Amino acid sequence: MQLLKDRIRRDGVIKPGNVLKVDSFLNHQMDIGLLNEIGKEFKRRFADLNITKIVTVEASGIGIACIAAQYFDVPVIFAKKTQSVNIDGDVYSAQIESFTHKRNYDVIVSKKFLNAQDNVLLIDDFLANGCALLGLIEIVASSGANVAGIGIVVEKGFQSGGEVIREMGLRLESLAVVERMDAETGEIFFRGE
Amino acid sequence: MQLLKDRIRRDGVIKPGNVLKVDSFLNHQMDIGLLNEIGKEFKRRFADLNITKIVTVEASGIGIACIAAQYFDVPVIFAKKTQSVNIDGDVYSAQIESFTHKRNYDVIVSKKFLNAQDNVLLIDDFLANGCALLGLIEIVASSGANVAGIGIVVEKGFQSGGEVIREMGLRLESLAVVERMDAETGEIFFRGE
Repeated sequence: MQLLKDRIRRDGVIKPGNVLKVDSFLNHQMDIGLLNEIGKEFKRRFADLNITKIVTVEASGIGIACIAAQYFDVPVIFAKKTQSVNIDGDVYSAQIESFTHKRNYDVIVSKKFLNAQDNVLLIDDFLANGCALLGLIEIVASSGANVAGIGIVVEKGFQSGGEVIREMGLRLESLAVVERMDAETGEIFFRGE
Repeated sequence: MQLLKDRIRRDGVIKPGNVLKVDSFLNHQMDIGLLNEIGKEFKRRFADLNITKIVTVEASGIGIACIAAQYFDVPVIFAKKTQSVNIDGDVYSAQIESFTHKRNYDVIVSKKFLNAQDNVLLIDDFLANGCALLGLIEIVASSGANVAGIGIVVEKGFQSGGEVIREMGLRLESLAVVERMDAETGEIFFRGE
């Protein structure tokens, strides 16, 4: 998605350690006009799927998922992060390892909101090692629902998450795949360019 | 807002201890059509203000704020919750006491995204004791920006937050104010009815 790549090149900030900050337009301050274009692009790419629910995980996926959901005309469910040790029986849960925060946490979705008839589109802002996404996939699988597609805004192509998910046979579409970035020169190289 | 009150009466669940669960349409699963009507209503109520930014706090305020922002044509900033003890100098921060989780946490907003020229609308899903909202107000004040208005979806009128905020002279609009609820009969009484 050229508009997105241009924006990442213009406003993204590369930090040492392969960190790409897009917090001025995507995941702290959010440019709603851009989010609408992202939502339309997800709809274009997944138009053939009969999506019944969009599922994301708090926090930064929520805004993107809600704006996109307008084009699919379906509800959004966001998985909640929790550190509770006691997960009750009314929720589907998965444990996620966070590299950023260097600890594990659980994500939960109430059993009321997913069932075997659902055809789910997963949406998130970032895909790096894939831990959060694998947790969401596990939760959807627990409910008997189908993961019809996965829409990611920015994939770090040099980390393993994208490959792992694609090898599972899942339909993953990333609107921008960063192949390589250079913190010194500020250059960003996208897949397919 | 009658559509919202009707929906709360239909799908809200009252739990002992004055807990009102609206997780089937507002803050776990989100009905995007309803969120759009809520966004339009906020725009109608705050149409006279020249809002430049909408500020909310993760997680459940984000979807509502993003959908509403389409009617104001402004960016959304969500304050991030953190348990980091070391808050660096690049952020505005406030400490919030959570009654639900019985612990304190910090919320932060990057200094890059708020300044003295901003005219801010705060948006959140719930107002009860007001701790989260007071934290957001403190953050906006630290930046020198103006809190022009506060839009809340559901206010628990029997808790003190609404009164505290209104006594500060701030313009607070809640789309539904619950005066009283009865966990046994399932009845909900709204202010002004």
